[in-house]
Amino acid sequence: MKKHQPINPNFPFIWHGGDYCPEQWQYEPKIIDEDMRLMELANVNTVTLNMFAWSTIEPEEGKYDFSYLDDIFERMEKRGGLVILGTPSGARPAWLAKKYPEVLRTNEVGQKNLFGNRHNHCFTSPKYRELVAKINGELAKRYKNSPALALWHLSNEYNGECHCDLCKEAFRNWLKERYNNDLDALNFAWWNNFWGHKYTSWDQIDPPSPLGEMRNWTHLLNWKRFVTHQTTDFMKIEIKAIKEHTPNIPVTTNFMGSFYGLNYKELAKELDVVSNDDYPNWHHYFGPNYIGNMASFTANLMRSYKNKPYMIMENAPSATNWTAVNKLKRPNMHRLSAIQQLAHGAESILYFQWRAGRAGSEMYHGAVVDHTGTDETRVFKEVASLGKDLERLKDIIGTTTKAEVGLFFDWENMWSATLTKGFNNTDDKNFLKTLYKHHMPFWKRGIGVDIVGYDTDLSKYKVIIAPMMHMVNDAFIDKIEKYVKDGGKFVTTYYSGMVNEESMTYLGGFPATKLMDVFGTWAEEIDSLYPQDENYVEYKGNNYRIYDMCAVIHEKNGGKGIATYKNDFYANTPAVIKNKYGNGEAYYVGFRDDGSFVDVLYSEILHDANIKSVVDFKLVDGTSVNARYDEKNTYVFVQNFNDKKVKFNTKDTYIDVLDNSIVTGDFELEAFDAKVFKKEI
Amino acid sequence: MKKHQPINPNFPFIWHGGDYCPEQWQYEPKIIDEDMRLMELANVNTVTLNMFAWSTIEPEEGKYDFSYLDDIFERMEKRGGLVILGTPSGARPAWLAKKYPEVLRTNEVGQKNLFGNRHNHCFTSPKYRELVAKINGELAKRYKNSPALALWHLSNEYNGECHCDLCKEAFRNWLKERYNNDLDALNFAWWNNFWGHKYTSWDQIDPPSPLGEMRNWTHLLNWKRFVTHQTTDFMKIEIKAIKEHTPNIPVTTNFMGSFYGLNYKELAKELDVVSNDDYPNWHHYFGPNYIGNMASFTANLMRSYKNKPYMIMENAPSATNWTAVNKLKRPNMHRLSAIQQLAHGAESILYFQWRAGRAGSEMYHGAVVDHTGTDETRVFKEVASLGKDLERLKDIIGTTTKAEVGLFFDWENMWSATLTKGFNNTDDKNFLKTLYKHHMPFWKRGIGVDIVGYDTDLSKYKVIIAPMMHMVNDAFIDKIEKYVKDGGKFVTTYYSGMVNEESMTYLGGFPATKLMDVFGTWAEEIDSLYPQDENYVEYKGNNYRIYDMCAVIHEKNGGKGIATYKNDFYANTPAVIKNKYGNGEAYYVGFRDDGSFVDVLYSEILHDANIKSVVDFKLVDGTSVNARYDEKNTYVFVQNFNDKKVKFNTKDTYIDVLDNSIVTGDFELEAFDAKVFKKEI
Amino acid sequence: MKKHQPINPNFPFIWHGGDYCPEQWQYEPKIIDEDMRLMELANVNTVTLNMFAWSTIEPEEGKYDFSYLDDIFERMEKRGGLVILGTPSGARPAWLAKKYPEVLRTNEVGQKNLFGNRHNHCFTSPKYRELVAKINGELAKRYKNSPALALWHLSNEYNGECHCDLCKEAFRNWLKERYNNDLDALNFAWWNNFWGHKYTSWDQIDPPSPLGEMRNWTHLLNWKRFVTHQTTDFMKIEIKAIKEHTPNIPVTTNFMGSFYGLNYKELAKELDVVSNDDYPNWHHYFGPNYIGNMASFTANLMRSYKNKPYMIMENAPSATNWTAVNKLKRPNMHRLSAIQQLAHGAESILYFQWRAGRAGSEMYHGAVVDHTGTDETRVFKEVASLGKDLERLKDIIGTTTKAEVGLFFDWENMWSATLTKGFNNTDDKNFLKTLYKHHMPFWKRGIGVDIVGYDTDLSKYKVIIAPMMHMVNDAFIDKIEKYVKDGGKFVTTYYSGMVNEESMTYLGGFPATKLMDVFGTWAEEIDSLYPQDENYVEYKGNNYRIYDMCAVIHEKNGGKGIATYKNDFYANTPAVIKNKYGNGEAYYVGFRDDGSFVDVLYSEILHDANIKSVVDFKLVDGTSVNARYDEKNTYVFVQNFNDKKVKFNTKDTYIDVLDNSIVTGDFELEAFDAKVFKKEI
Repeated sequence: MKKHQPINPNFPFIWHGGDYCPEQWQYEPKIIDEDMRLMELANVNTVTLNMFAWSTIEPEEGKYDFSYLDDIFERMEKRGGLVILGTPSGARPAWLAKKYPEVLRTNEVGQKNLFGNRHNHCFTSPKYRELVAKINGELAKRYKNSPALALWHLSNEYNGECHCDLCKEAFRNWLKERYNNDLDALNFAWWNNFWGHKYTSWDQIDPPSPLGEMRNWTHLLNWKRFVTHQTTDFMKIEIKAIKEHTPNIPVTTNFMGSFYGLNYKELAKELDVVSNDDYPNWHHYFGPNYIGNMASFTANLMRSYKNKPYMIMENAPSATNWTAVNKLKRPNMHRLSAIQQLAHGAESILYFQWRAGRAGSEMYHGAVVDHTGTDETRVFKEVASLGKDLERLKDIIGTTTKAEVGLFFDWENMWSATLTKGFNNTDDKNFLKTLYKHHMPFWKRGIGVDIVGYDTDLSKYKVIIAPMMHMVNDAFIDKIEKYVKDGGKFVTTYYSGMVNEESMTYLGGFPATKLMDVFGTWAEEIDSLYPQDENYVEYKGNNYRIYDMCAVIHEKNGGKGIATYKNDFYANTPAVIKNKYGNGEAYYVGFRDDGSFVDVLYSEILHDANIKSVVDFKLVDGTSVNARYDEKNTYVFVQNFNDKKVKFNTKDTYIDVLDNSIVTGDFELEAFDAKVFKKEI
Repeated sequence: MKKHQPINPNFPFIWHGGDYCPEQWQYEPKIIDEDMRLMELANVNTVTLNMFAWSTIEPEEGKYDFSYLDDIFERMEKRGGLVILGTPSGARPAWLAKKYPEVLRTNEVGQKNLFGNRHNHCFTSPKYRELVAKINGELAKRYKNSPALALWHLSNEYNGECHCDLCKEAFRNWLKERYNNDLDALNFAWWNNFWGHKYTSWDQIDPPSPLGEMRNWTHLLNWKRFVTHQTTDFMKIEIKAIKEHTPNIPVTTNFMGSFYGLNYKELAKELDVVSNDDYPNWHHYFGPNYIGNMASFTANLMRSYKNKPYMIMENAPSATNWTAVNKLKRPNMHRLSAIQQLAHGAESILYFQWRAGRAGSEMYHGAVVDHTGTDETRVFKEVASLGKDLERLKDIIGTTTKAEVGLFFDWENMWSATLTKGFNNTDDKNFLKTLYKHHMPFWKRGIGVDIVGYDTDLSKYKVIIAPMMHMVNDAFIDKIEKYVKDGGKFVTTYYSGMVNEESMTYLGGFPATKLMDVFGTWAEEIDSLYPQDENYVEYKGNNYRIYDMCAVIHEKNGGKGIATYKNDFYANTPAVIKNKYGNGEAYYVGFRDDGSFVDVLYSEILHDANIKSVVDFKLVDGTSVNARYDEKNTYVFVQNFNDKKVKFNTKDTYIDVLDNSIVTGDFELEAFDAKVFKKEI
Repeated sequence: MKKHQPINPNFPFIWHGGDYCPEQWQYEPKIIDEDMRLMELANVNTVTLNMFAWSTIEPEEGKYDFSYLDDIFERMEKRGGLVILGTPSGARPAWLAKKYPEVLRTNEVGQKNLFGNRHNHCFTSPKYRELVAKINGELAKRYKNSPALALWHLSNEYNGECHCDLCKEAFRNWLKERYNNDLDALNFAWWNNFWGHKYTSWDQIDPPSPLGEMRNWTHLLNWKRFVTHQTTDFMKIEIKAIKEHTPNIPVTTNFMGSFYGLNYKELAKELDVVSNDDYPNWHHYFGPNYIGNMASFTANLMRSYKNKPYMIMENAPSATNWTAVNKLKRPNMHRLSAIQQLAHGAESILYFQWRAGRAGSEMYHGAVVDHTGTDETRVFKEVASLGKDLERLKDIIGTTTKAEVGLFFDWENMWSATLTKGFNNTDDKNFLKTLYKHHMPFWKRGIGVDIVGYDTDLSKYKVIIAPMMHMVNDAFIDKIEKYVKDGGKFVTTYYSGMVNEESMTYLGGFPATKLMDVFGTWAEEIDSLYPQDENYVEYKGNNYRIYDMCAVIHEKNGGKGIATYKNDFYANTPAVIKNKYGNGEAYYVGFRDDGSFVDVLYSEILHDANIKSVVDFKLVDGTSVNARYDEKNTYVFVQNFNDKKVKFNTKDTYIDVLDNSIVTGDFELEAFDAKVFKKEI
């Protein structure tokens, strides 16, 4: 397959390095020299600068001091390294907050923030937008000609919301546009005759607040949309200010996985490359399958935004410091987690943080260079060794991935499904955990998965899995219908096909409108189970326990029950319905299980769809494989998330890219080991 | 016994129907037509209108549009159905909140509400009272001559409190009245020399607030009383505005069981009929006894306010949507829960909601007509079938109940017992759960129970049970003393007889003043137990585990220990004291058990008092019976809360009112079944 | 050893009595008479007056009414009893709050307090300082010549903080002084280039707030220091006002054990005698060892502030009322807890409260005289009996204690260790519970322990135990180095020696600078364990489970591993390192255990250091001993915290001070019994 362009064609290799804060060490210049020496030893080629240095480069308004940045740019230019340059909007200086208090956020009960923390500015404030555009422009002008400048990093982990008067006004204006200035249309969509909430003028509308409205789900949904819109709008101001001077330098901002607060799909549209902050709880007692699969899901998500390689902008070389229990990454774990990301499409492994600060919130967060400050630590040595491996993996730059399975995940649906209260509300309906469960059968079989959404071209996939597809608009209903009719296999579940894009229920029975035809079922009721309740589904002679929710469903329009409930008043009624529709097949899974049922079902669907793992060897528990491709080669990434050795046997013959050995027949992976094999297509 | 009048003599049958919001469906008029058709099919004769339609009927101040109401009134008149007309004070229009922000509530830390939600207006605001009186008057004038108008429903589930300046002032004025304008009397009652809290002017007094005073229990208690007073005062404004035009239409408002926030006994005094919203967690894993008994306790409470039939204003035809785990009502469960209410004195079965809305907070709350919109759903069919049964049960209208046992429950005591901190504070002293435990022995034996309070005439009862009777004023002490002296049996427990009506302790030993004589005991100390602590009481050779609290008590004035503690320093001292006093008997139960001890004790007391079940057959676990009476007949309601069939054997001969069969000897009830038998007295 | 002076040489006996609030009973004067009679019966010689009586003695500004105080002074003078006179700053009158709202506290989100509660005034307010000084002066002038006046009790349980503008300004001024007016020094110490937080003017600095900064640990640490400073400064105003008139009357204020909010070491410097409020959860299911040892730790802390006797200002004669489960003190428990305090150096046993109030927050808190009001209660009789015992123990006044073991606990370290996030953050790093674990081996062996801090002369001790000694400044590093070199034994653990006095990490490896030499180790990493994680340390053939945290450590500079990890990647590496350094020995314990490992280790160290219990008999589980000394005698306090009898055998011969019997050979202690023996040195 045709390769993708590198992130920046001037730097066609895997970027290794990360957040570097020399502004913290100006008091001791020899530390900067030592950093340069250690970066060489660590096989680090990238530094990310300046995200939190606004107070350093503009110590008072209009007075600039770029000396520390000039110094590092010069050093990196000399080394042939590259600089990712951060815009400093994530943490304004104290003088700015004092001088322009309007830039400070107001919380949902109307309290104005004080200076402090970070990521807490108002996204609407014209003054803040002006000041950010100005400093971004100054940075762009100064470094636009540096050969080291490889990428812009916008702000840091955009998040949060503001309830100041300017934001309220912006919300109302956004609503006017959404509803074509038609307040009745809004009243209808929000079903405002419920509880007599009809608005008669736009200025009666406020954002959600515990002091006001918190229980109109459509209101909540549209506020979430607005927050994404306004954050994106702010981000576009940032981009404009830098693109004016550096039109050819790509731009990114760092995401936080499947962060609930922002629809990253909207932000991604404005970015040249997507990047993620990758902090799974490795070695959690949930076990290697759970964490490995969850990290894989997120990695698939990152790649799927643009269907091209993405970046790891942050990860911890060892422990973090901000969770309750911050475990050390065991030997090899860091390398494994890095290779896992490359396997899914990542082309950078960047750290938070290069060197641990002496105080401040993250002083005990893992760093390549810890407070000992030497190259003798276990962590430093593992990073340096990984750096070598990354050099050996240079050829994977631009390689592609393949997926015949699409897993449906869309922020709009997550919001709709979790904001709406009904049925079993425990833990936000366990929404993400349920998605991980449906991702697991593919992960453990080494089957490539793309994350798909409303706007995805489904025809590329043989199988679509859509758990808890609560929200479907007419266009998506049509798309599903056409997809199945044309031969696709589509699986959905309980709590699907219920509301339109305003989170209003359809009328006439669920799943709505023509989906009853497609799935061959009418889902009449949804029952909820306490953890103490016990019920089972029988499928091919085995029983699978039901958790949390199950739907009472009926065969309709030719659908056939293929599994049945065991107990309760819906005993002996169908629990899963399969329907041949056109040239395809649609499945409606009526219940939530612990993952063992969907594992069996999906293995059968994979068999029917003739979807196979890229490898011929059987994966054992806690292992996975992914593949990337160029025109000539398949690169296979074999990953062992277990804390013990595993054995495989292949009839294929591979070249081990990292040591150039030939692999065939029996081979082993040590605890937390990963291997990258190459084979001609 | 002489029958009660029907709620409204024009409609002498069981009301069946409920909350109906055609204002939500004006965009699609054929849905209203369909509603009328479906109501016929569902055997529904009642609609409750308008509680949340203020913004529809008065879209701007002084401009009225009653067209949707006119339409429904006309349709109901044609059908011979009846309308319960709601006053819309529970949810003011957005324009009103914007125009008169003073109507919005202020919370306990001084934050002003925004528009949104419902039930959040200031009860004191003169402007809100004026506007509510006005709209109520308009409604009354318009519909006073409609033959369909059967009942007024005031607002909805009154609750909450406001801390605005007007409310503070009202609180101070209420206190002035309570204490005869004598600030020293207040200082004494509140024991304000503790922590130097003596007030020297009335304006120094604020409502309880986490920013100020939260730990003077008498202050908290009086604030609760004031909130009840002010809510009732507001309600009286509502009543006055409608009674002016419709003096003969009865008035109710819907209660929420034993809701902690308002003393419903005070509200009930102003109402013509009491109504309740009945939402037990059916099928909870606590089991059928727990939930069935709890629902029975609440039903007894509703009837006891006025010692006459009450209404079910809301109940769910199936699941709710606002708890964590919203289980479907199993087949027959809805019918069972309805008949349970009739058995206790209810004469209406009304739903929230007739038709499920398409969005808004309760879109997934159960409804007679769900989003499918047909008469083919399980729920619709069960409702329709129940409607038929209700028609067959028409004769129970106005029938009476009997109780020889009174269970003491009074808001004043609940507040005093739970607001005051001491001994075991876990879970608000498990106050209500403890009352349910003491209600259970009667429920499972089919013994009628009235809920009694300070103002009840005790002489009607053979047995009074008063658990945790913390607060007793002098008059009530006298009443107890006379009751026992005259031959009554009175049971109280640990944590009883300790404070007067200001929640000030008595001096001289507990239970206070002459109760030591009546109960034959001095309760010197109260010990508390962790869940990990194990101790037992021995009674007639059996051991009963102690939970949470127990009192160290002494025989005094002739009282005799009849059970003893097993362990700890009070081992071998009395745990229960029985005292013959005058012609009666008083029991002091020193400890909290899991219910098994009081079951034994109360069965003995029932035996001694010669109180018997209305039926001759033995009830099995999870079943109960109640009876209602007219001049000639006894109606027996047999209820099976189990999810399996149960069998009984009776020597009596009954007519099954629902199918006119004769019942004698062996008979069965299916899972969740209920039967209504008739027998001549 | 030379005896200490009594608290007040005019009253050279053990003070027995406590908080007495006759201002609550003025409505019924005969109760005051009865109190005097009961005090005689209870062998009470002390009353503590006036802490919450400001509104009584100054009912309006400048108008005084001391009559109730005059009365009690007169009565106590007649009885030869003594008065502890409270300053009333802890609860200002309502009129004062109304007239001068600036005295009310502002919380961390800027909300102004209302009147109510107590301990909630602004410590900075000049007006409050003026008014407190004035009332204190008035009290001192009035009672300075009373022969009953024995001690001043300042306010009550100083605590809390204020965020008003005056406090913000005071914080900034305090910072200016701390950093010599050098904002760059502050920016460096706070590492403000992290997250771009550099201040450019002092007025940009705010206190920590959820609305602003909460994650700069040095900021938080300095705010805690400031709160201590400002509270102490306020206290000094109080002291000055009274010392002006009564220079010879000693002054105290009541502490709350190891209360997190204030560095009591700073307050203690200004006091003549330290006093504590002693409320252990006796009879908690954690068991007698846990609570007995915890109470002993706190008692050692109280004595160690000034290395001289201290007071128990409050304790409950039976249950409290403000915890979740308030258990009664079992028979003898109160006596045991009192004697435990005397054993550690206490010379008063004072109660909250003499007589229980009839209402108010603490109406159900245990009291010597409960609501029964007689001398017939169990509690009263136990108090009276204890009073007799205290008279018999008169000779212990001024006796000294000995300790060869110092346990390191310093507020500065507790704050630094717990505010800083990293590694295992669960439950504030279980900081205090870990200290209790390290105290236990000494408590259960009857070995005297002093609590030591940064400013202690370590050379007095043979062994120093310093768990989680996170913060060490250069001077303390030098002190440790010299201590070990000179022959001391010093034990520290994981998470030690990491930061300086600004909570900035040292560079170059942990434990920092020369501590790596002293302890013979480099602690490279700290791992964290979930409760589900299982790992062990092997020491001399036994395995000890690891909890929460462990350090990966290396032998260095001659240190020798003496225990090894069993599993994980650090299996077979040292878990404990012992280093001979100079004439001493240093131990670095790399892991947290359940107490069983440190029990073994410390028993060996005690053996090596030749430290022995003061008694020759073996203590059994749940028992402890302490000793006090005068020039001729050793007083041995034997304590049995078990709820059953225990037996001992001694070869010594003692006089039982309480009954003058001779004790040798076998002797017993009943459940919760305590004995005081005397032996000539």
